[in-house]
Amino acid sequence: MAHDCAFLEDLLPSDRVSFRADARDEHATDFGTDVEGQGVQPDAVAWPDSTADVSAVLEAADERGVPVTPYAAGTSLEGNAVPAHEGISLDLTRMNEVLDVRPEDFQLDAEPGVMGPAIEEAAGAHGLFFPPLPSSGDISTIGGMVVNDASGMQTVKYGEVADWVLGLEAVLADGSVIRTGGRAKKTSSGYNLGELLVGSEGTLAVVTKVTISLAGIPEQIRGGRAIFETLDDAAAAVTDAVQSGVDVAKIELVDATSARMANNYLDSDLPDAPMVFLEFHANHGIEAEIDFCRTVFDAHDPLRFELGDEEEMETLWTARKELAFAVADWDPDLAPLVPGDVTVPISDLPTMVRQVQDVAEEYDVLIPTFGHAGDGNLHYAILVDHGDPDHVERGKAASDAIVERAIELGGTATGEHGVGMGKREYMLREYGEATVEAMRSIKYALDPNDTLNPGKIFPETADGERVRRPARMER
Amino acid sequence: MAHDCAFLEDLLPSDRVSFRADARDEHATDFGTDVEGQGVQPDAVAWPDSTADVSAVLEAADERGVPVTPYAAGTSLEGNAVPAHEGISLDLTRMNEVLDVRPEDFQLDAEPGVMGPAIEEAAGAHGLFFPPLPSSGDISTIGGMVVNDASGMQTVKYGEVADWVLGLEAVLADGSVIRTGGRAKKTSSGYNLGELLVGSEGTLAVVTKVTISLAGIPEQIRGGRAIFETLDDAAAAVTDAVQSGVDVAKIELVDATSARMANNYLDSDLPDAPMVFLEFHANHGIEAEIDFCRTVFDAHDPLRFELGDEEEMETLWTARKELAFAVADWDPDLAPLVPGDVTVPISDLPTMVRQVQDVAEEYDVLIPTFGHAGDGNLHYAILVDHGDPDHVERGKAASDAIVERAIELGGTATGEHGVGMGKREYMLREYGEATVEAMRSIKYALDPNDTLNPGKIFPETADGERVRRPARMER
Repeated sequence: MAHDCAFLEDLLPSDRVSFRADARDEHATDFGTDVEGQGVQPDAVAWPDSTADVSAVLEAADERGVPVTPYAAGTSLEGNAVPAHEGISLDLTRMNEVLDVRPEDFQLDAEPGVMGPAIEEAAGAHGLFFPPLPSSGDISTIGGMVVNDASGMQTVKYGEVADWVLGLEAVLADGSVIRTGGRAKKTSSGYNLGELLVGSEGTLAVVTKVTISLAGIPEQIRGGRAIFETLDDAAAAVTDAVQSGVDVAKIELVDATSARMANNYLDSDLPDAPMVFLEFHANHGIEAEIDFCRTVFDAHDPLRFELGDEEEMETLWTARKELAFAVADWDPDLAPLVPGDVTVPISDLPTMVRQVQDVAEEYDVLIPTFGHAGDGNLHYAILVDHGDPDHVERGKAASDAIVERAIELGGTATGEHGVGMGKREYMLREYGEATVEAMRSIKYALDPNDTLNPGKIFPETADGERVRRPARMER
Repeated sequence: MAHDCAFLEDLLPSDRVSFRADARDEHATDFGTDVEGQGVQPDAVAWPDSTADVSAVLEAADERGVPVTPYAAGTSLEGNAVPAHEGISLDLTRMNEVLDVRPEDFQLDAEPGVMGPAIEEAAGAHGLFFPPLPSSGDISTIGGMVVNDASGMQTVKYGEVADWVLGLEAVLADGSVIRTGGRAKKTSSGYNLGELLVGSEGTLAVVTKVTISLAGIPEQIRGGRAIFETLDDAAAAVTDAVQSGVDVAKIELVDATSARMANNYLDSDLPDAPMVFLEFHANHGIEAEIDFCRTVFDAHDPLRFELGDEEEMETLWTARKELAFAVADWDPDLAPLVPGDVTVPISDLPTMVRQVQDVAEEYDVLIPTFGHAGDGNLHYAILVDHGDPDHVERGKAASDAIVERAIELGGTATGEHGVGMGKREYMLREYGEATVEAMRSIKYALDPNDTLNPGKIFPETADGERVRRPARMER
C-alpha cells in the first residue's frame, strides 16, 4: 500500500526529499536482500540533517500512519534497513559529522551517518582506535553498526559494538528525543535504554547521536597465519587457543573454498587449504603470547604457522574483508541465497563447522565458510542458481538446517547481522513465545503505531497484523 | 495500606511463608536504608525455591494487586530491595544452587540466591573467576549483583557485571517465564532484553537463573600501594595512569579520613595519608606494567610507591572492603546519611574529588571518600548526627550538591548502587522528562499493574499514582 508522503515537502528543503524512482530504488535493497525478494521500494526518501529534522519527520509520519525505515550505508545483510511496508526511507547519511573527540576520556561523539574510516581517522589522530569495527567498517556507518549491534574481527579480544557505546541520543516514533547513558564509564542509574536500542534495528527509535568509547592503539601488533590439512583441525586449534586463554586480537577461520574464491577475486595466492589468520596486540611481551599460541596450535597438526610482515598481513586482512564479495563473484550462475551468520559456544565451534560441511553435502549445495571463529561466530554463504527452483529450495533447507543446529547447540540465529526480515522466522525457535511477546510489548510501548521499521525482527502474526497491543495490557 | 496475602499459604508450604513480625522486620531494611526512614515492612515474606514458585506467587499477586518486592542478601544501599508499598517480600535466598559449570566455555549457571563466595569456589575449581564481583561480593548474591548492575574493584580492567551476563531466565509480573540471551558469546538476535533486566532492580522481572561468563585466573598477580601527600595528587595520579593506558586490574583511591577509620575499625596500621591501592594481572611481563605505572605515578609526587607480598595485600584489600563498615563504626554519635556513589568521566575525577572536599567544607560535614577511582567512580559517606535536624539538613544538602556536580560533569547519579528509593529524585535531572517517560513506558509494558517493586527508580508522579499508562499509548 502506497502512502501519501507529500507532507515531507513541508518539513524538509526540496533537495532533501525525493519521490523519484531512482532514489526509491537505491533504498530498496541492502547487501543481502534483493528487491525482487523481500524488500520493497519506499514511497519517498528523506534526508534529515539534524535531530530536529528526524523528530519532525517522525512526528508527522506517526500521526499519519506512515511507516519510516531508517537507512544509512545499506550494507546490512538481512534486510534490516529495507522497507517491508513502503512509507519513508529515512536516510541518515547526511548527518555525518564527528561532533567531538575527547581523548582525555577515550570518547568520541558522532552523528549516525559517520563512516567507519572517519571514526578511525578522528580517533587515530590521538593514538586511539575503535576496536569493534566490523569487517564492513570501511563502507558502513556508526549508526548502522550500533542499531545492528555489529561486531568484528577484534571482538574476540575487545567485545562488540554494544560494549563500546556509552551514550545515545535517539528519537522515538512520536518525535520525542531521548538520551541514554552519558559520559561516565559506568552507570546503574535507571534502565539500560541504550543497550535496548543497540541491536533494535531501528524498530524502537532513530539514533541521532552516538558517544562511543575508544582504546589506545597497542604498542605492539603482530600478525600471522596457520595452515591446516583439514578444516576440522583448524577449528579445533581455534577452540583450543581460546580455551587455553591465548590473548589474541583476531583469530579468523577461512576454509579452502573461501581461499580459492578470494584468490579468484583478488588475484591473490592464498594456499588452497583451511587457514587461521591471526593478530596479536600487546604493549610489551608480544613474543611470549605468540609462542604460547604456537604451542597450542602445534597440538593440532598445522602444516605451517608463520608470522607475516605488515605488507603480507595487509594482503591477508584484505582477502578476509573482501570474502563476502569474492563469494558473490565466484560463479556467474550462482548467487548467495543467504549470507548467513550463526554463533555457538566456543566448545561447539568444531561441531558447528563440521555440521555446516555435512549440511552442504546433504543438500548438495556449495557453502563457503569463514568467520570470527574465536567468538564461535561462523559466516557461511549458500550459493545457488536462482533460476533453478530446486536448487533454491535445497539452499533454503540447508540454511534452515544450519540455523536450527546452531540453536540446538545453545547458540543464536545471528551473531552480528541482526534479524531483519531474513531471520524473523527463527525468533520463536530461539526464544519461545513468552520472550518474543515481551519484546513485542516493548515495541508497542515505545512505538504503538508500528511506525518505525515495521515488519522486522518479529515473526508475522497469524492474522497479518503489523503490531498488537500486548495481552498483558488488556487486563 | 496492608494487603491480604493469605493466598500465599495455598501456593507455598508453611515453612516458606511468614507473616511474623520478625521475618517482616528482617525484610524491611538494607545496608543503606533505615526502616524508620523510607522503607516499610512487607505484609508477608515468601521464600520460593523454584521458578515455578516465583511464577505462581507473581501471577497470584498480580491478579490481586499485591506488590511484590524481590529480596536477597539485603546488602543494597539505596533501598533497592526494601518494600516501598508493603505487599510481599519475595526472598530468593533459598534458590541458591550453582546449576552448572562449563569450564570449556567459561560459563556458569546459577540460581539468583547463590552468594559470591560460592560462585568463586565453583569457578575457582576450574582455574576460573568472576571478574566483576563487587566489594560486597562475599555477602551478596549473584541475582542481586545482576539486577543492580553491580561492579567492583576489577571493573577498571574487566568491566561491570552487565558485561559478564550471557543469559537470564526471568519471570514477568504476570507469571510468564522469559529467557534472554543464551550461551553464545554474542548475539544480535532480537532485543537485548537481558541488558534491560540488568540494573532494573526487580521492577521489570524476577531473575530466576543467570548464565555468567568467567575468565581464567591470571598467571601473575601483584599488588601494591602508593602514598601521597595530598588527595589531589592521588586523584591526578589515578587519572594519569588510566589515560596513559596502564593495564591495571584494581586502582582504588582511599582518603586519609577513610584510612583513619579503617585503622580504628580493624586495628590496622595504614598510613594517615591519601593512598592508591593497586593490583596488576598478567600472564607474563607483569614487571614491565608495574614499572610503567610507577613511572606515571612518579610525576605526581608520591611519598612512596611500594609493592606488597600476598599477606600485606590481603590486609590492604580487607581494609578496602570493610571501609563501609569502618565508616559506620567511626563515631557513635554519627551515622552515614547516604552511602553515596557517583561516577564521572576519568578526566574529571580530580575535579570531582576536589568538589567533594569543598562540599564537606561548605556544609561542615564529615565526608570520607574512597572508591573505584580508575572508573571515575567515587564512594562517599556523609556522616551526620541523626538526632540533630540541622546536621541532617546540611548532610542532605551536601549529598544533593555532590550528585548535582557529578551530573554537571557529564557523570551519573549512581555508578553501581542503583537508584532504589535513594536516588529517584535525580532521574529527571540526569535524563530529562522524555527519557524517564520512555523508561516508564517500558515498565508499563512489562508490568502494567506495577506489581514488581513499586516505588523504585521513578520519581513519584505529581498525583502520587504508582504507575500510569504512557501518553503515547492513548493516541
